[in-house]
Amino acid sequence: MTTGMLRDDALKGKTIIVTGGGTGLGKSMTRYFLQLGANVTICSRRQTVLDQTAGELTQEVSETAGAGQILAVACDVRKPEEIEHVIAQTIERFGRIDGLLNNSAGNFISPTERLSYKAFDTIVDIVLRGTYYFTLAVGKYWIENQIRGTVLNISTTYATTGSGYVVPSAVAKGGALIMTKSLAAEWGKYGIRLNAIAPGPFPTKGAWERLFPEPLIKMMDPVSRIPLKRVGEHQELANLAAFLLSDFSGFITGECITIDGGEVLMAGEFNHLEQVSNEQWDTIEQVIKQANRASKKE
Amino acid sequence: MTTGMLRDDALKGKTIIVTGGGTGLGKSMTRYFLQLGANVTICSRRQTVLDQTAGELTQEVSETAGAGQILAVACDVRKPEEIEHVIAQTIERFGRIDGLLNNSAGNFISPTERLSYKAFDTIVDIVLRGTYYFTLAVGKYWIENQIRGTVLNISTTYATTGSGYVVPSAVAKGGALIMTKSLAAEWGKYGIRLNAIAPGPFPTKGAWERLFPEPLIKMMDPVSRIPLKRVGEHQELANLAAFLLSDFSGFITGECITIDGGEVLMAGEFNHLEQVSNEQWDTIEQVIKQANRASKKE
Amino acid sequence: MTTGMLRDDALKGKTIIVTGGGTGLGKSMTRYFLQLGANVTICSRRQTVLDQTAGELTQEVSETAGAGQILAVACDVRKPEEIEHVIAQTIERFGRIDGLLNNSAGNFISPTERLSYKAFDTIVDIVLRGTYYFTLAVGKYWIENQIRGTVLNISTTYATTGSGYVVPSAVAKGGALIMTKSLAAEWGKYGIRLNAIAPGPFPTKGAWERLFPEPLIKMMDPVSRIPLKRVGEHQELANLAAFLLSDFSGFITGECITIDGGEVLMAGEFNHLEQVSNEQWDTIEQVIKQANRASKKE
Amino acid sequence: MTTGMLRDDALKGKTIIVTGGGTGLGKSMTRYFLQLGANVTICSRRQTVLDQTAGELTQEVSETAGAGQILAVACDVRKPEEIEHVIAQTIERFGRIDGLLNNSAGNFISPTERLSYKAFDTIVDIVLRGTYYFTLAVGKYWIENQIRGTVLNISTTYATTGSGYVVPSAVAKGGALIMTKSLAAEWGKYGIRLNAIAPGPFPTKGAWERLFPEPLIKMMDPVSRIPLKRVGEHQELANLAAFLLSDFSGFITGECITIDGGEVLMAGEFNHLEQVSNEQWDTIEQVIKQANRASKKE
Repeated sequence: MTTGMLRDDALKGKTIIVTGGGTGLGKSMTRYFLQLGANVTICSRRQTVLDQTAGELTQEVSETAGAGQILAVACDVRKPEEIEHVIAQTIERFGRIDGLLNNSAGNFISPTERLSYKAFDTIVDIVLRGTYYFTLAVGKYWIENQIRGTVLNISTTYATTGSGYVVPSAVAKGGALIMTKSLAAEWGKYGIRLNAIAPGPFPTKGAWERLFPEPLIKMMDPVSRIPLKRVGEHQELANLAAFLLSDFSGFITGECITIDGGEVLMAGEFNHLEQVSNEQWDTIEQVIKQANRASKKE
Repeated sequence: MTTGMLRDDALKGKTIIVTGGGTGLGKSMTRYFLQLGANVTICSRRQTVLDQTAGELTQEVSETAGAGQILAVACDVRKPEEIEHVIAQTIERFGRIDGLLNNSAGNFISPTERLSYKAFDTIVDIVLRGTYYFTLAVGKYWIENQIRGTVLNISTTYATTGSGYVVPSAVAKGGALIMTKSLAAEWGKYGIRLNAIAPGPFPTKGAWERLFPEPLIKMMDPVSRIPLKRVGEHQELANLAAFLLSDFSGFITGECITIDGGEVLMAGEFNHLEQVSNEQWDTIEQVIKQANRASKKE
Repeated sequence: MTTGMLRDDALKGKTIIVTGGGTGLGKSMTRYFLQLGANVTICSRRQTVLDQTAGELTQEVSETAGAGQILAVACDVRKPEEIEHVIAQTIERFGRIDGLLNNSAGNFISPTERLSYKAFDTIVDIVLRGTYYFTLAVGKYWIENQIRGTVLNISTTYATTGSGYVVPSAVAKGGALIMTKSLAAEWGKYGIRLNAIAPGPFPTKGAWERLFPEPLIKMMDPVSRIPLKRVGEHQELANLAAFLLSDFSGFITGECITIDGGEVLMAGEFNHLEQVSNEQWDTIEQVIKQANRASKKE
Repeated sequence: MTTGMLRDDALKGKTIIVTGGGTGLGKSMTRYFLQLGANVTICSRRQTVLDQTAGELTQEVSETAGAGQILAVACDVRKPEEIEHVIAQTIERFGRIDGLLNNSAGNFISPTERLSYKAFDTIVDIVLRGTYYFTLAVGKYWIENQIRGTVLNISTTYATTGSGYVVPSAVAKGGALIMTKSLAAEWGKYGIRLNAIAPGPFPTKGAWERLFPEPLIKMMDPVSRIPLKRVGEHQELANLAAFLLSDFSGFITGECITIDGGEVLMAGEFNHLEQVSNEQWDTIEQVIKQANRASKKE
């Protein structure tokens, strides 16, 4: 069981907005930010979910010395005016904004030819449009107020490799990753940093089942495809996210860090030979040695 | 002056749709496809521009034996019904569709913090939404009709590296490139291929001036930043595009080929040392040798 | 069956050195270069193999109008003096050198922890050292003689992704690929271009069996892992290689083109869902729709 | 001034070997590992330098509670028997080995055509051969003893982008990076992790002057090419290195993390527009608006 890795005050005095902060990984990251002293505004579409999470987390960190506070503001990230409302509320409550974690997502697994134009748009609008709207709004605020803020985007490995069966999400995450690199280059002069994390499988009760209904769930054995032979723990992601939102990563920008147990590496052309047993390798060695000897005799 | 590289009948019997085919590089590629025997439907927003181009190109290839025919259909790629109209017209006229060249683009150069949400959307809608709408529409047609079609997307090097000052375009091109890789993987089983080209500077009268108004144009000296010390010729791009749309590239899919004179390579950390003269290198060699000798004496 | 794609005189007047040109893909590429009018020097360690290939290919192209000539010079690419001998012989026979195809290779499949230091060195020396020695020697000749030459390196997809079980080869190919990009940037000012090709499976009788002895061969079903569901044809690789060594690719440098039927794309996180049948997707769609309806009622 | 970011006991009980640990960044990282509780073996060619560093660092951490101990063993990483000696000494002194930091390097700045074969070999042998020898030796020890060890390689951004004028180093670092990815995939099943860091400019007195003699030093103004407009601090690198060698990064493997202030991002095609002033952008906006108005009137 991994524990928090950073010094207790690593985010002290920071205010961070977390989109999609009401559930799953967003909630886990928010918890750790609070523990490290940050104030956090969580937002997502449903106020009731947010309020429940805010209550829970406030309770959880109530005995942690120096823990931050939490604010819950409903927001559809596809709507600029709602984004601006979150920003205004956050500034009113906490005085300023230091970090933005674009974590809202939507996805469904399907052969692409079964998708309507509208289904495709829905995912792209939440994941990509929402991300650039929010980043644009917060970035303008930072530049105007000369704040050296930092953005963290939750990406995926298929934002780089591409992937079938999740194409709208791949397109949107791909676009958002390039935004990360582009603005890191452009806004570096303002002291603004942007980074991303590409997590492999970090199962979350609920989300996991929704994403992979029967009979898919049976085929999804991510562990076998992961070199380290396990899935991730939420705290591992939270550690990395807190690092990237803290000043400790002050010289890192435009970077996307993969935390996936090596899953994406399985692209390597011969990695499927993992299934060859030690005894088979012994045999193969013999065969090769004989062939080499024969070849030399020629 | 580069000439056409492929055998004369390389695209014989193929029908290709070229978005943004009325002007600039789209027009140059269309010309070469016609010369190689393809029928081409060009589309863009303004019918008058398309008609003029169609007339011109028909005239130009009129003495080329085996040249293809051209059809001009107006289309706003952000509107599915207009896309479907282009597809229907093309099938009615030429019998079927074999290739799609997503070449429509929009861009403007600006610091990102000066952009409105709407300005950002405009570029993303043309470049990204238009590309996935058109690809989805043609892909469904191919799968339904068991046609082993091929898509070519005009990308950019900053779809991979990111770039400031053209962020909406970078985001859109980045998303479209990941679509290319994603669908290449997913639709390979249907024999459908998708590839991309990332061109460096290929100046086009008009477009170039629009993109880089004074005083920008003076700062845009692409040649100095290009290892090969020249810009591209339209025929060089047309050769590559024709290859990727032809059956000769039948084992290439999901690939993005950069044709930029090496411009993107200048990322290399020490490549700016190009400015050191031969005489200076002579001096440096001496300094290093002396330092090494001194270091060995220690 | 793919045929030659380029105009008949695409390499007329060029002289190209092909390392590892006596067998397999090197022989297939050499054949096509000869057909396109190039003179070719093939080299590899065994003179008898080279002589036989030279004889065969001369015979084969004897009726092709404008075909080039072939020279066979033995060479161990790990020895600078032998490389310089090949260069001298080529210039003596054909007057100059225009292209270099670094195609020599060595590989064996093995868990890395079973390798000795020496076994690792053997592969790295042939593949990497041989490549930079030959490139350095030919590059100096070109710069001194102001020849705008071009280098083509045969790479692999695992030069970028990495791969277990072929680690010495991966290390060597990885290094050689970065050499390609580095020198393309640095030597562009001399008009020298360097590119690479990353081929997927192109089976060659002999080499294939040597690389994959029983029981490995049974596990190597590359076709199932390739989106396009087939392996490559030698002529497809020869077409791409000839293009990259010809002046038609004059604006492409520092690029590595993958030709693998999409094999490397299978890295995409959800591409293994290819195994889900159409009927299963129907079921999944129903499950998701019901879940969404239930979720909305909440 | 950045401080240490990890909890005080982050490396407690670990033993780490640091090649090139006697000077520069290797020394800075070693200091932090000791502070975090790790025992460290430093090695490089000169015993006197190592001894001095060992003395200094022991002194420095003498008042840090729980600090680790340091061992200095001379080693030429190109010689397997010397590597095995370091391993044996480390096990004898500290009982076992948990981490390996491949940090030894060599480099010189020069046009490639001025290099001899031997000069090229020298760098490749230290940087690449030394890295795979040491990794192979330690990996075999871990697999045999079922230790879930971790390797960290100091890479560069040009291991991915390539770079002229440092080509032997680029080739070597490129190969070593692919080794990192390859073995991460293959050895993941043993619980062994391998990662890399690509640092931008982290000036070190001495090394910096040696690498960039006059008149080069005047041309090396890295700050202007770095989006964040500053160079890195040693502690920033040490923080990242300690994280990657600790169990807190237990789900990260095969990854290379860039910490360069965004330097590598400047590859983006339009990033040089950073030099356009705000007033010029005002003018440009006016020009574009007028052009658009004129274009609409047409």
